[in-house]
Amino acid sequence: MKKYQKELDMWFKENGWNYWTPHEILARLFEEGGELARLINHIYGPKKKKDSEEKQELEEEIGDILYTLVCLANVHNIDLDKALEKSIGKVIKRDKNRYNASR
Amino acid sequence: MKKYQKELDMWFKENGWNYWTPHEILARLFEEGGELARLINHIYGPKKKKDSEEKQELEEEIGDILYTLVCLANVHNIDLDKALEKSIGKVIKRDKNRYNASR
Amino acid sequence: MKKYQKELDMWFKENGWNYWTPHEILARLFEEGGELARLINHIYGPKKKKDSEEKQELEEEIGDILYTLVCLANVHNIDLDKALEKSIGKVIKRDKNRYNASR
Amino acid sequence: MKKYQKELDMWFKENGWNYWTPHEILARLFEEGGELARLINHIYGPKKKKDSEEKQELEEEIGDILYTLVCLANVHNIDLDKALEKSIGKVIKRDKNRYNASR
Repeated sequence: MKKYQKELDMWFKENGWNYWTPHEILARLFEEGGELARLINHIYGPKKKKDSEEKQELEEEIGDILYTLVCLANVHNIDLDKALEKSIGKVIKRDKNRYNASR
Repeated sequence: MKKYQKELDMWFKENGWNYWTPHEILARLFEEGGELARLINHIYGPKKKKDSEEKQELEEEIGDILYTLVCLANVHNIDLDKALEKSIGKVIKRDKNRYNASR
Repeated sequence: MKKYQKELDMWFKENGWNYWTPHEILARLFEEGGELARLINHIYGPKKKKDSEEKQELEEEIGDILYTLVCLANVHNIDLDKALEKSIGKVIKRDKNRYNASR
Repeated sequence: MKKYQKELDMWFKENGWNYWTPHEILARLFEEGGELARLINHIYGPKKKKDSEEKQELEEEIGDILYTLVCLANVHNIDLDKALEKSIGKVIKRDKNRYNASR
């Protein structure tokens, strides 16, 4: 993800933009998460309307969330690859210690 | 991110696990987002307690959110690189059309 | 709030409706919270566009969140007045024990 | 809910406290919503551990969310009863116009 982080950072610098404040980015994350929630209720929820474009919409909402995370990471000089590796590592490590970790 | 998506998918398959349902993953995303929110209020908010470990904690919370997105993407066979590229593209494209898009 | 809880419950019964599942209501809460987040970024955030209708919009978003909480409470037979009293009590009690609890 | 709104407002005034900023309250709402999400995954989700105290915990999490809404409403001089009445009204009105609005 380093590539994306750098690309966005350069774009901001070239255009003289500032990132939003962490609280503003967080509010944006909440908003984008809420749009994903609406979509999931739409696809799987009480109205269960099957939609041929659902996968594309999911891709879009997830991409928007990723984008807010790239912004937040750039503000704090955080390496997203490292962050993700660690979180995956926790799951794999945690579950190695169980006899049966499946559902 | 394809590497991470495949790694997790193989791990699940090898261990005979199933991903959670989309609603369960969404609830998890809400939970992880909430932990990030608490941390941001802690770092920048009313209590403004500067903490030397704050960057590491942010990395961890962001990593956990990324992890839930990898799960959700894998359930739906979504390519996260493509998703992120599109969302970045929207910002760059959208802002190209403005005279002054900075804050 | 008991009045509202009963009113909604009767309305559902009279019409033979079922409440959504807790996961579906939670997703709805995420969605409504996200709309509130968008509004707060709109009013106070990077774009700081003052809007004469902002108060009315805030009222609407907060009302929608309250509505999802009434549904969730009714599903679980929870008394919202009691719930709120306890949460206010925690704050008042917690802060009584501090010398200076203001920001 | 007016009673609770006034009670909290007087408490803040008597103690010389200020409410948090809207962004800070929103982050708190995200955090409290996230705790509710964790609880719902715990009760209904992949781990489905039945817990005799679950109702009390739900009451507590919902109460904490209500508390953040009271703060946000007080900051903006919003009447929560009116807000909730309108949101319930939307549902009842909306569904009156359908032949079959049940799930």
